[in-house]
Formats: sequence, structure tokens, C-alpha cells
Amino acid sequence: MTVIPAAATGSVAWLDALRRRCGTDVHAFVTDRVREHFTGRAAETPAVTALPEFVTGGKFLRPTFAYTGWRCGGPESAAALRAAASLELLHCFALAQDDVMDGSARRRGRPSLHVLFARWHEGQRLGGSAARFGESAAVLMGDLFLVWSGQLLHGSGLDAGALARGRPVYDLLRSELAVGQLGDLVNDARALPSWTDVVDVVRRKSGNYTVRRPLEFGAALAGCSAEVITALATYGGLLGEAFQFRDDLLGVFGDPAVTGKPAGDDLRERKASSVVVLARELADHRQRAGLTELLAATEIDDGVVARWRDLITATGARDQLEKIIDDRVRRALEAIDQVPLPRQAASALTVLAGRCTERAR
Amino acid sequence: MTVIPAAATGSVAWLDALRRRCGTDVHAFVTDRVREHFTGRAAETPAVTALPEFVTGGKFLRPTFAYTGWRCGGPESAAALRAAASLELLHCFALAQDDVMDGSARRRGRPSLHVLFARWHEGQRLGGSAARFGESAAVLMGDLFLVWSGQLLHGSGLDAGALARGRPVYDLLRSELAVGQLGDLVNDARALPSWTDVVDVVRRKSGNYTVRRPLEFGAALAGCSAEVITALATYGGLLGEAFQFRDDLLGVFGDPAVTGKPAGDDLRERKASSVVVLARELADHRQRAGLTELLAATEIDDGVVARWRDLITATGARDQLEKIIDDRVRRALEAIDQVPLPRQAASALTVLAGRCTERAR
Repeated sequence: MTVIPAAATGSVAWLDALRRRCGTDVHAFVTDRVREHFTGRAAETPAVTALPEFVTGGKFLRPTFAYTGWRCGGPESAAALRAAASLELLHCFALAQDDVMDGSARRRGRPSLHVLFARWHEGQRLGGSAARFGESAAVLMGDLFLVWSGQLLHGSGLDAGALARGRPVYDLLRSELAVGQLGDLVNDARALPSWTDVVDVVRRKSGNYTVRRPLEFGAALAGCSAEVITALATYGGLLGEAFQFRDDLLGVFGDPAVTGKPAGDDLRERKASSVVVLARELADHRQRAGLTELLAATEIDDGVVARWRDLITATGARDQLEKIIDDRVRRALEAIDQVPLPRQAASALTVLAGRCTERAR
Repeated sequence: MTVIPAAATGSVAWLDALRRRCGTDVHAFVTDRVREHFTGRAAETPAVTALPEFVTGGKFLRPTFAYTGWRCGGPESAAALRAAASLELLHCFALAQDDVMDGSARRRGRPSLHVLFARWHEGQRLGGSAARFGESAAVLMGDLFLVWSGQLLHGSGLDAGALARGRPVYDLLRSELAVGQLGDLVNDARALPSWTDVVDVVRRKSGNYTVRRPLEFGAALAGCSAEVITALATYGGLLGEAFQFRDDLLGVFGDPAVTGKPAGDDLRERKASSVVVLARELADHRQRAGLTELLAATEIDDGVVARWRDLITATGARDQLEKIIDDRVRRALEAIDQVPLPRQAASALTVLAGRCTERAR
């Protein structure tokens, strides 16, 4: 496991404060928007309470990386923090619409937006399908988060030069997000992909979206040098992959009491995640037959999940993925060691590498 | 009917050229984005051909109003034209997602995006529901149009000052669009609303979205005076309503050979449109009983549509709505007569008032 140097512990308090301030900014902004657009209407939909609730309670990883990227070249700045927080609204956009597409009923310990709107529709005794209305409404709430993200960015208080530097990465990130989600839908529907396919999706989707682009975005806003941006991109790509591999391990081996999801959630959903694909590639003839059989099981109960987990562990996939994560983190930290960075930023990047890959949820 | 002054005929050529240039700009921009994000992937989805096709063939009304708003204070400008064209991508976003929510199988004489993606899914023999995949994919394509709209605006070549002036209207327009669509979904599901309710929805949705906000947006980009912007807002609100009333008349009385939609399309969909609601308000006791009976018909065939049309005409709703349209257009033109406007812009606004309200499709 990667060990966080003692020198970095001061960053923990800084990162926690950053996350709290982001949460406050985003909540206040969305509350204002809801007041502007939703109150005083004849039919007061769940938007009024659900949207401000929805935007809090996340990990605020993307704003954290964006603001840390900013701090690689810029001073502490409330405006830059608001600009970074715009990525959390982008994330909310993705979550609201992904939950519709994946049919996920819960999000962050609460019913998903489409479920809330469907229940409201039933309670109001409106005509037509409540489920259909709920899905359409959740898509629209996602659209609003996407619109509001841009509005928060452009109203952040950063000057026009900074905004113009940040826009290309911001636009790239947003297009990649939608294109990546389409790729996910295509992949979900296909036969088990190869390890190379999985790593490609992981790189494009999580690697770029969660760590690399947010860091590049913040660094671009701050006007960092090409050298620094390249180092951050390398760190971000590697750490983003490691982040997703950890996610995939938790999706199979995570403790439901900690993750808040059912045990072996990814197995139940037959998700072709990295650890599942790696297990098949590493499996011997007998193990592969066992995996194929489990994959074909019509009902996946706790017993099937337990056998599946044991078989994945027996192939060595779990240990190997842990090694791959460690390797990615090591190389990510090496990349940022190559360039001069402000102490605060370098230290935060070290702590974040641990947080993204040593977490239990 | 409103008569277009002979002096305005020079504007017709100008407006046609404007529309062609917008079409070219938007098509080229989307072709570039598709090339950037979709080509060279293992699974080449319909996006590659469908997205550039989708963005052409519209009326380009919103960019036309935006650019005309710009011309109220700014010179001819390729950059301003690109900024105005960004509203067409916003419109494509709305169309792609509305078609999913309304279950509309066709758009602009072609299959809707969700239908194209569902067919592709079937052709590729992927697992899971093709219809579901099609809907998710179309929502994502809508998201991309929304993202690309902002990208086209910010990369238009307008200076930072102009963009900063335009942003607030741009953001307002986008939020109103999503909130208005939610209102539509709620209204569709309710019992027949009152005339006041209908006019309120028409004002917020079409009045603002199609004419008023695009005009305000262009005028803000150009830095027009508050006096000019107020006059454009009045014109835009009134003309937008008239535009929607014409749409509603066509939805009941339009010629299928010209509109490209089935005869009495809005009746078949039981849409609580302005003309339907007005008919109920104007109906005598016997007529109202007839309307209630038709509204309850389980199957709406050509015979039912014909009887419904006759009944609506008999209530006087058709004639009254024509008078309301004429009144709105007259007051819209009066509003812009009160302020000094460049001849080209004033003349274009006069032609557009006719085009929006005298059209047959």
C-alpha cells in the first residue's frame, strides 16, 4: 500500500476545509437557482427540496482536483473555488441521468431523482405513467445541473482571461463525459470485453473525468506552464485508472455496511468490470468454466456472490489488481515529483492519491 | 392578416442568406465535433452521420432572431453569426430529448434519434432492450448538443466583453427551456387547463424561448441600450405568443401535405393546446358536451378529427385565435416602432413577424 508521508498531514485539514467550502458554495448556488426558477409555481415539484439536497453529500473529488490544479499556479481564491465547484454540478448532471439509464433506485442513501419525481406524480394523481414522468423529469434536472455548472463557472468571479484558458478543457471534459457514457451503454450490452478494452474505457471515462481533466482545468485557469500541466495530466491519468480499479474491487469485495451498496453489487449487475475481466483472463481451464457458469446464473443470490468472489480471488485477479493500483499510484507520484510545484499543492496531490485508492467506499 | 410593407422585401434575401450561413456554420461545427469524438472507435454508432444531419433542415428561427437582435446595435459579423448559431444547437438539444419524452418517432422527415440508435442496437445484435438503449443514447446526444452550443458560443470569436454581456440571457434561456419542458410534462398529464394557464405556459415556453430571449441575447452581445432591449423584449414576448398560437392552429387545422404531420395531430395526442382550451371556454352548453365526448373517445380516427375540427370552428375559437394573433403582431410591431433601430434590423423584424404567424407549416 502507498504510504502518505508525514509531511502531507497538514493537507488533510486543507482538503477537508476545501470540500466543506465547495459544498457550501454549490448548495447556496443551487438554492438560489431553485428559488429563481421553481418557487411560486402552481405545481411545486420535488425540485425545490430535492435539487439542493442532491448536490450535497458527495465526495467533491472533481472540484478538489480542480482547485488543487489551480493551486499549482494560483493563489488561494474564492473565485477559483467557485469555478472548481462548477465540476460538482457537472457530476450531478451525470449522476441524475446515469441513474435513469441504469435504472438505479437509490443515490447517496436517498431515492434517486427519477424515483422522487415518479412518487410525486403518483401523489398528485396525474394521468399517464408515473415512472415515465419520473425519468423525463430526472433527465431535465440533469440538464439543469449541466446548465448551472456553466453558469457557476462564468459567474465565479474569475477574470475573462482565466475563463478563456479553462474553457477548452471544460468543453472537452463535458463531451468526453457524454461520449464515455454512450460507450458504457454499448459495452454493457456486449459480451465480456478484453482487459485491453476495459482499460481503454477506464482511461477515457474515469481516468480523464475524475482526476486528469479536473486537474488540467484548474491548472489552465491558473495559467500553469505546459510542463506542469503535462505532469498533472500524467498523474491524473494514472491515478484516475487506479481510482476506478479500486471502485471495481469494492464493487465485488466491498463491505455493504461501508459502501452502502449490496455485497457484490457489480456481480449482481453482471458488470464487465476490470476485476471480473482480469479474473477471466487469469483463470485456468477449470476456473474459467466456473466463471462462465456463474455468469450464466439466472438468479444471483448471496451464495452465488460468495462463490464468485472466492473464484475471482483464486485466479489471483484480486492480488494482481492491488499490485496494478500500487504501481499506478507510484508512477503518478513520480510524475509530479519531476516538476516544481508549490508545497501545498504537491502535498495535497500526495494525500489525494491515497484517498482515491485506499478508500473502503 | 398583417401585411408586410414593400420596403421590407430587401430583408427577405438578407434573412435567407443569414439562414443559409447559419446552417453551414452549424453543420461544419458539428461535423468537426463528431470527427473529434466519434470516429476511429471500435463501435461506430449512428452519431457519425445522424448528428450532422440532425442539425440541418430546421427553420433556424432562434439564430435568426439572435442575429437580428445583434444587428440592432452591431455591424455585420461572422463571429456574431456563429454566436447566434449556438442557439440552433440548443434547439437541437431540446428536440432530441423532447422526442424521447414524447415518444415521437419522426423529426424533420427522418426517424428521431432514439429510433435510429434503437435500430442500430438491433442491427448490432447487442443484448438488452434496443428501445431503452435508443432513448438513453438520444438523451446523451441531446446533452452533447447542449455542450456544443456553449462551445460554439465561446469559440465564436466575439470578444470577452460581448460574451460576458450575453451570458446572463443565455443562461436564463437554457434554464427556462428545461423548466418549461417540465411544466409541459406536468400540464400534459393534468385535466384540461384554463385559458389563463395556457397563455402562461405559451408565454414562458414559446414566447420567451423562440423569439424574446434570442433577440435579447443578440442585443446584449451587441451592447444595445436598455431602451432598445426593452422594446425587443416586448416585441419578442408578443410575437412568441402569436407564433405558438399559429402552431396550435396548425396542430388542429393544418394541411398534412404541408405540415408533414398527420391531420389534427394535436387532437390525436389530446394536447391541451390554446385553440382546444379556447374552444371549451367559448362553447355553449351543447357544444361543450360534444367536446367532452370527443375528448373521451378511446380511438381518434379521421372521422373524429373532422367532427372535432367542425365543433372547434363552430365555437368561434378559430376566428377568435386568428384575431388574437393579429392583435399580438400589431402590438409587437408598434413596440419596435417606438425606438430608433437600424433600417436593416427593423425591416427584418417586420418580415419575421409575418413569417412566424402567417406560415402554413
